[in-house]
Amino acid sequence: MGSNPPGLTWSLIEAARARIAPLIHRTPVLTSTTLDEQSGARLFFKCENFQKGGAFKARGASNAVFSLPEAQVRRGVATHSSGNHAAALARAARLRGIPAYIVMPNNTPLAKRAAAERDGAVITLCEPTLAARERAALEVIAATGAVMVHPYDDLSVMAGQATVAVELLEQVEGLELLLAPVSGGGLLSGIAVAAHSLRPEVRVLGVEPEGADDAARSLRAGRIVPCEHPTTIADGLRATIGVRPFAEIRRYVADIVTVPDAAIVSAMRRIWEVMKIIVEPSGAAAYAAIAGGRADVRGRRVGVVLSGGNLDLGSLPWITPARE
Amino acid sequence: MGSNPPGLTWSLIEAARARIAPLIHRTPVLTSTTLDEQSGARLFFKCENFQKGGAFKARGASNAVFSLPEAQVRRGVATHSSGNHAAALARAARLRGIPAYIVMPNNTPLAKRAAAERDGAVITLCEPTLAARERAALEVIAATGAVMVHPYDDLSVMAGQATVAVELLEQVEGLELLLAPVSGGGLLSGIAVAAHSLRPEVRVLGVEPEGADDAARSLRAGRIVPCEHPTTIADGLRATIGVRPFAEIRRYVADIVTVPDAAIVSAMRRIWEVMKIIVEPSGAAAYAAIAGGRADVRGRRVGVVLSGGNLDLGSLPWITPARE
Repeated sequence: MGSNPPGLTWSLIEAARARIAPLIHRTPVLTSTTLDEQSGARLFFKCENFQKGGAFKARGASNAVFSLPEAQVRRGVATHSSGNHAAALARAARLRGIPAYIVMPNNTPLAKRAAAERDGAVITLCEPTLAARERAALEVIAATGAVMVHPYDDLSVMAGQATVAVELLEQVEGLELLLAPVSGGGLLSGIAVAAHSLRPEVRVLGVEPEGADDAARSLRAGRIVPCEHPTTIADGLRATIGVRPFAEIRRYVADIVTVPDAAIVSAMRRIWEVMKIIVEPSGAAAYAAIAGGRADVRGRRVGVVLSGGNLDLGSLPWITPARE
Repeated sequence: MGSNPPGLTWSLIEAARARIAPLIHRTPVLTSTTLDEQSGARLFFKCENFQKGGAFKARGASNAVFSLPEAQVRRGVATHSSGNHAAALARAARLRGIPAYIVMPNNTPLAKRAAAERDGAVITLCEPTLAARERAALEVIAATGAVMVHPYDDLSVMAGQATVAVELLEQVEGLELLLAPVSGGGLLSGIAVAAHSLRPEVRVLGVEPEGADDAARSLRAGRIVPCEHPTTIADGLRATIGVRPFAEIRRYVADIVTVPDAAIVSAMRRIWEVMKIIVEPSGAAAYAAIAGGRADVRGRRVGVVLSGGNLDLGSLPWITPARE
């Protein structure tokens, strides 16, 4: 194991927490009697849909942008992202007063693209594959001299996302289980390391769409097995798990369960109806695992990360709009 | 003025507050940097969409049901309501262990009807006019011996709704203006009396849809002028103002402004997008007056009542669904 990259540590997470405190919201934890009764558990929903920019990504992006030395970031930051990290990086760059260059897959929801543009980011569109994203990002960096801030395969980003769990474990006593969605793995790995550091008895579960189940398959295989053509309504969960997140997930995540898109849509609608809050498909995935019986939560106190709330409200998965 | 009915007093409101505290949520107050910047004001949104049953109506219905003597309520309670009061009364009756009989206009959204049915209420549908509603309710009462709990023209209901303002004035310092939607007037009159009792310098404004502007016209005329055929997307704001609420509104409400349905829909979508919370059209009316420039809020600290969040998510006003 001597060739492993350096990992995420508690001291990186602690530093991230102090650094980003003035830049982000300490998001509320909501509960629902109705959803508790249906699940037979006590559910504590960590509302990252209320985070700055509408997703947890504000945490990691702010930590990365504000931890880089001045000399390195003068010419800006760049990334490739399906949306929420893009907007979060654009905002963090604006707060630091530097440019942001964003490569986005051309199937990114309009709402997410608009959010990055409002913060002054320069957008480049590309094909929706990891290879195309990485190639386009390298070109942008070569042309601008900007520093790459990877959406998840980056310790400072992972440390920022970890603060979701630091807060949740402070806000709720006696949690036994934590569920979070997994895409590139920045959030899940951060949560797993934070929980292991603070409350090692807490079991951490990842949740992934069936149509983009590279993390679940990678965990079973013991090595990263990418999905070439991920297919899921959860546009935030299409990325391939990163090397650094995967290393932590193998150590500290109990399991990764998968959920079909229909369960994600149904969970999303249920959260809207019962809790009166907006979550995007990716944001509903962790609850989908509970509502769909993929995670055994009965009788437990369970933290559920609602990771974000950005989507095109003009096109909802349960309404087929009329053609013009 | 000697023939006026007895009015809403602070002692009724104080008693309501203590009585319903264990039965309802003390709802949170949310703020939004984005909406503050756009309005040039500091907006404090009182989130009654997060109330039990998804609307402020839980307050008045609980106060009414639990303040009636045992001998009077043994055979149940009855009401006519376009929805949220119905569900709230059904819930309060279930908590007290008595039956609830509900008359609903036949254009009530499915979600609101289902909510009342889940709490075991017996539903009777009628034509969507005030006359038809009142006639059907009288028939139900004659047949069952239930006690009528009017959705708004009732001091104990008004006292319950008033607790929205009691909480809001505790939760936010230095409010200068309070905006709430007006339909039958239970909420607005309660808020006005509570604000006058606690902080008489606070200006209270009512907001009404243009297509159901009986309260605005009544305030100008000095007497109740019903709308025979109210037409608005805000299904919770179609009732005619009641005698008891109107008496308080004339005394303590500074003005009632009207908003077109387009402004209500746009305000509703904006709240969903920016705040990531679900409000129904009626619940967005108060903010519509601000976003549409009908209320002068610039530079002020403004309480905005988001009155409810119940609607059919399968049919949103900004999406035209495909025909089957």
